[in-house]
Amino acid sequence: MTVLNTHQCFGGKLGFYQHESSACNSSMRFAVYQPPQTNDQPLPVLYFLSGLTCTEENFMVKAGAQRYAAEQGLILVAPDTSPRNTGTPGEDDDWDFGTGAGFYLNATEKPWSQHYRMYDYVVEELPQVMAANFAVKSDRQGIFGHSMGGHGALICALRNPDRYLSLSAYAPIAAPTQCPWGQTSFSRYLGSDTSTWTAYDATELMLANSGWKSDRSILIDQGDADTFLHQQQLLPETFEAACQQVGQPLTLRMQPGYDHGYYFIATFVEDHIRHHAAVLCH
Amino acid sequence: MTVLNTHQCFGGKLGFYQHESSACNSSMRFAVYQPPQTNDQPLPVLYFLSGLTCTEENFMVKAGAQRYAAEQGLILVAPDTSPRNTGTPGEDDDWDFGTGAGFYLNATEKPWSQHYRMYDYVVEELPQVMAANFAVKSDRQGIFGHSMGGHGALICALRNPDRYLSLSAYAPIAAPTQCPWGQTSFSRYLGSDTSTWTAYDATELMLANSGWKSDRSILIDQGDADTFLHQQQLLPETFEAACQQVGQPLTLRMQPGYDHGYYFIATFVEDHIRHHAAVLCH
Repeated sequence: MTVLNTHQCFGGKLGFYQHESSACNSSMRFAVYQPPQTNDQPLPVLYFLSGLTCTEENFMVKAGAQRYAAEQGLILVAPDTSPRNTGTPGEDDDWDFGTGAGFYLNATEKPWSQHYRMYDYVVEELPQVMAANFAVKSDRQGIFGHSMGGHGALICALRNPDRYLSLSAYAPIAAPTQCPWGQTSFSRYLGSDTSTWTAYDATELMLANSGWKSDRSILIDQGDADTFLHQQQLLPETFEAACQQVGQPLTLRMQPGYDHGYYFIATFVEDHIRHHAAVLCH
Repeated sequence: MTVLNTHQCFGGKLGFYQHESSACNSSMRFAVYQPPQTNDQPLPVLYFLSGLTCTEENFMVKAGAQRYAAEQGLILVAPDTSPRNTGTPGEDDDWDFGTGAGFYLNATEKPWSQHYRMYDYVVEELPQVMAANFAVKSDRQGIFGHSMGGHGALICALRNPDRYLSLSAYAPIAAPTQCPWGQTSFSRYLGSDTSTWTAYDATELMLANSGWKSDRSILIDQGDADTFLHQQQLLPETFEAACQQVGQPLTLRMQPGYDHGYYFIATFVEDHIRHHAAVLCH
């Protein structure tokens, strides 16, 4: 693991790191914020998955989460959103597919299957890298994310309720098999057999009773002035209906006037950090 | 004035605007954050001047100040750091001169004197634009800034103590006539007669007893791991000595481990907003 750079921030340390990923068969970058409490003890870890076009930087630069992680004693981890510069033909042709758009799945279709394995990277490999290099409590993990990363957080947690104790999302792509972004990406990453898609669809996982502990409430914030909401890319109400059907507690907050961007994320990041800290830190 | 875009943020509204500036004889952009209290009453205004290479965006995207402006009921204004696309020969040749590096002065040397008049823009024109388009208390203005913008905040306030009631800075270029950045820029913008430079040097203004009310303490934060501090570009101790010589209260906080970037700014932005609000909002 190479240290790219570090910055003092709210009394703790924000670092950007690079390593050779076996899951993605390429080099990967991620960011870690270690709060001031790091020096005294191992700490719980909260993963943030970013949206389309983002890197490991956006959340750490724009969300203002470090202040609240420092208050609560949480380590924050933000991975990149896909492998990069893999030489895969067409990887840079689209803003919403390929580079910056890994969709947190394990691609099975060529040529994507060689590198685009973000699901294994996030769920398996990155926690191992964290455990090997940082003072973390590996049994106290939470996950959240935004848009494509909100989708990622939902599917990672719903499929692995024993690995993630807390879950929230901002404006997630909550039913990707039913929206254009998901259908376009899943068909290219996973192929035309749509039965393989359901393993990466939060609504389908919820309806199938994935195993997420129903006593753990999920928090979702969604701006009601979000262009992508109106374009039917996000479908939070579809996920909400699935939760109601299986009796899963969900707090879906429609935030009046807010759009899809980081000013929306920053406004509610304190609530999300507290949602996770209430489970992870106590 | 053209509205470029707006975003809901911490219950208020962040907007980006463009207008034709008479001071700069060009179009200029600026950002305004109006907190939720805007709808009820005119509010005090706090200007933030950014550093080299920045635009009107950096502070609003990275500093996390909106939360505290919303708490206190302050309007935040962040102008761009220079005119842009003026056609001035050489304007884009250097990262620390010309575009993005207006140094908050009125250039007197050709070809810069036609457009590079950021001092008049910030002190005279932008407050008029604010008064004409937003519900502001024009007699309750404060100013702060970072690096080149910290220099700008200091000189604007020290020269106009009746226009600005409160003053702070992050890592300001505090004695520009004694550092390479200032000497290079001032010689090109103002010419070789260094007697004209002192009107834009915070340390010289302080020594000359500019008229800043000595009962108003100035707050400066400076990271001790700041590369530019060690390169003698900032010289906060020179400014501190000047303040001591004339009896001006100054709180200069050397922040251990912090560098020159926005993670440093974000860490202490609550303190700065409170420093200003204590004067402007009460």
